[in-house]
Amino acid sequence: MSTRIFPTAQDAENAFYEALERADLEGMMAVWSEDEEIVCVHPAGQRLAGQAQVREAWRQMFAGGPGMRVQVAQRVAVTGMMVAVHSVHESITVAGEQRARPPIVATNVYLRTPAGWRMVAHHASPAPAEPAAAATPPAPQGPKTLH
Amino acid sequence: MSTRIFPTAQDAENAFYEALERADLEGMMAVWSEDEEIVCVHPAGQRLAGQAQVREAWRQMFAGGPGMRVQVAQRVAVTGMMVAVHSVHESITVAGEQRARPPIVATNVYLRTPAGWRMVAHHASPAPAEPAAAATPPAPQGPKTLH
Repeated sequence: MSTRIFPTAQDAENAFYEALERADLEGMMAVWSEDEEIVCVHPAGQRLAGQAQVREAWRQMFAGGPGMRVQVAQRVAVTGMMVAVHSVHESITVAGEQRARPPIVATNVYLRTPAGWRMVAHHASPAPAEPAAAATPPAPQGPKTLH
Repeated sequence: MSTRIFPTAQDAENAFYEALERADLEGMMAVWSEDEEIVCVHPAGQRLAGQAQVREAWRQMFAGGPGMRVQVAQRVAVTGMMVAVHSVHESITVAGEQRARPPIVATNVYLRTPAGWRMVAHHASPAPAEPAAAATPPAPQGPKTLH
């Protein structure tokens, strides 16, 4: 489907969000693993499994063309030799809308394959509106130093 | 924190859901990696990162004691030598409530560590109520055979 090689998981992630902004279906699918079972959950959407379901959902989402800006922040990464798990906050702005959409939290999982790093899972869901206040547990009860 | 060894990712997953049903904080934290950055998203909750935040959220959730039954279904797994990604549907029933809670879709990521398989990410979010109808894209537009 694609010969594009991503030397790092971050390269694959950058291509994922570029394709999302460009509404570029082939660019999007080039990020995903072709060999593995793949899993995608869009905010408040059904779990999609396998190339056909994942591609069809992106096709429908991209049908109206580009118009979305995505800012990615607060990345937390677990990175190994063969796997990378990135947790990010997505701020999405849609052209023509007065204000930003509610924040999204996404878990992106990448595997190192013979064809470079590829995405095998994307799970996105609505996050509460005020991350800073609620994300930190009360310090006195915490068994370890907060970081 | 724990010397419990999980020989497979599925063993770790079984222990995760057992601890959830038993409201067993130590059993729950024994499933999680101690060495890696860990990430946990509860349904409609903030992204929690690191042992302290993850543990504190489970502590609060378990404070009322056990009373939850979790049925796990429709597991899709991506499994490698060192990593396993499980996507599951959770049906949660709470004691004293007349009907089941809305369905949850969860992405669980496990790494093989020197201390056996451990969870590094759990992302759970509400799923639409009728999976069967919406999860299957329209066949005629599908670029590949549905499975």
